[in-house]
Amino acid sequence: MSDERQRRHKRAMEKLKQHVDAKVAAASVERGLLLVFTGNGKGKTTAAWGTVARALGYGYGVGVVQFIKGEWECGERQRLADDPQLEVVVMATGFTWETQNRDTDRAACEATWAHAERMMTDPSRYLVVLDELTYMLKFGYLDVQRVMRALAHRPPEQTVIITGRNAHRELLEMADTITEMQETRHAFNQGLKARRGIDY
Amino acid sequence: MSDERQRRHKRAMEKLKQHVDAKVAAASVERGLLLVFTGNGKGKTTAAWGTVARALGYGYGVGVVQFIKGEWECGERQRLADDPQLEVVVMATGFTWETQNRDTDRAACEATWAHAERMMTDPSRYLVVLDELTYMLKFGYLDVQRVMRALAHRPPEQTVIITGRNAHRELLEMADTITEMQETRHAFNQGLKARRGIDY
Repeated sequence: MSDERQRRHKRAMEKLKQHVDAKVAAASVERGLLLVFTGNGKGKTTAAWGTVARALGYGYGVGVVQFIKGEWECGERQRLADDPQLEVVVMATGFTWETQNRDTDRAACEATWAHAERMMTDPSRYLVVLDELTYMLKFGYLDVQRVMRALAHRPPEQTVIITGRNAHRELLEMADTITEMQETRHAFNQGLKARRGIDY
Repeated sequence: MSDERQRRHKRAMEKLKQHVDAKVAAASVERGLLLVFTGNGKGKTTAAWGTVARALGYGYGVGVVQFIKGEWECGERQRLADDPQLEVVVMATGFTWETQNRDTDRAACEATWAHAERMMTDPSRYLVVLDELTYMLKFGYLDVQRVMRALAHRPPEQTVIITGRNAHRELLEMADTITEMQETRHAFNQGLKARRGIDY
């Protein structure tokens, strides 16, 4: 590479580093975060599980509550389940369009939410994941004010991740970080089968 | 709940189930996928690691190649590193704006890419993650044609996940599934410190 190009690159990188350093210095508040992974694209639940693996890697206590999804989606649970620092609760009623009974689903949601509330009062849980919670609000199985209350009163060091499409407006307002996973293209819509160990 | 509401719900769910069943039936092609997680939002790398945990949960062989990122980001690696089915290679030169030497970075990229190529010829790797690869193309450290060639010739059962901002147009054209992780809000920009075990 020419010396001139090398110098230009170095200057550009120095400028970028200054910018990043300034942002790091400005970020001074330390507390647990509320993260929302929403949107119609692939990656919401897997991003949550990736964060679970990350937190466990440092030895932090983690709680995961999975709403709706059934026992068939279990690769990541299986892999991490033996960790004494991890507790996973799964509603496991199957998808609501398979059970097709609103009252049963509502009762299952209620019982599962009780575990979420317990975890959100436990300071030993550094990270709590409420996977697919958004649907519980959307279907009216759970009241948004109750969810907001539990979030507001959780231990200050605790980070909570909420995943699911169509996140409630009030949840979004409360969130520190929101990522909208947008589906630009999905293999499934092109006739490609869902892959074991990849899609579920 | 009223009987009428219960009936309405049941009908809506039956219709949804028909729609989903039809899509599942139409998806008949079985092969490894090319997934791209791009966009400026949080969740690209963690979604890849979540998928790693998922694939490992079924006992599949997984290879991860991390471009750029340094040793400091390691929670998820640490947690999964003991898995005999997982191989992780990390370029680990630190961020390019810290090393600020284009030639060194390019050489490190070249050496790291060799591992990616090896994994992409190995049928025992059911999943290969090329984390932050997009920057290697953007910085000109790696030629896109070379990457496309390796992808095109990989074992048919192998799924590859590429993460990073500003994914190359040709990579996007080749992808089966693209998720654009959009940053709607980020805690860091509101003065909140990055959290150990959450952000890194």
